[in-house]
Amino acid sequence: MAVPSFGMTRVLAMGFDAALARIPEALKSEGFGVLTEIDVKDTLRKKLDIDFRRYRILGACNPPLAHQALSANLEVGLMMPCNVIVYEDDAGKTVVKAIDPLNTMAAQGDARLQEVAGAVRDKLARVLASIE
Amino acid sequence: MAVPSFGMTRVLAMGFDAALARIPEALKSEGFGVLTEIDVKDTLRKKLDIDFRRYRILGACNPPLAHQALSANLEVGLMMPCNVIVYEDDAGKTVVKAIDPLNTMAAQGDARLQEVAGAVRDKLARVLASIE
Repeated sequence: MAVPSFGMTRVLAMGFDAALARIPEALKSEGFGVLTEIDVKDTLRKKLDIDFRRYRILGACNPPLAHQALSANLEVGLMMPCNVIVYEDDAGKTVVKAIDPLNTMAAQGDARLQEVAGAVRDKLARVLASIE
Repeated sequence: MAVPSFGMTRVLAMGFDAALARIPEALKSEGFGVLTEIDVKDTLRKKLDIDFRRYRILGACNPPLAHQALSANLEVGLMMPCNVIVYEDDAGKTVVKAIDPLNTMAAQGDARLQEVAGAVRDKLARVLASIE
């Protein structure tokens, strides 16, 4: 059975390092800063001595929309920041995915969060489309 | 209508700073390190010049369980790390909440993720209970 995706996906023609270099700028053009970054490969090597594929988790935040969401529901910080992940797939292609907040912060039916989540989703979709 | 919670909640008798000081140790006792930390109050002040309540987002990671989840479903990094939030409520009480991964990474029916998410949920529940 296919498992539904948590987010939106784009497979890029560029390499992993080129993608990593361009994503912050693409996010910035939609008002997102990168607040956090986790190097999964490095973390798993250090903590578990496991060799994992190249994989980064970027935590992106659009401050006005974050403030709107927090004002609607104080616990929505449990779903922040909005993750954008970049990894190399089994064929060596660079895959970038962005969380779809309609599947997370808005999934439990809060109408005010659904409005913010829709705006964030649209922005992150444009971010993915703009990585060239 | 009450909105269902994304996570597990505990209201503490201690102040915000005391809670912040104790949470990393409580997480460590269940195998979680704190990989990221966002000072929401500070971020909103710097980016939007808005005065917001004291509010932190800690990104916690249990490396063996993270590796198990990523091995089951590569895109689960969209839901990592596991957030623990701390804030002052309107009455000045310190509230701590932890994400319930059964509501996020496991919500879409992937049986392998449900197993990991259950283990993470149990650990985070013990973390919340242990903050004294």
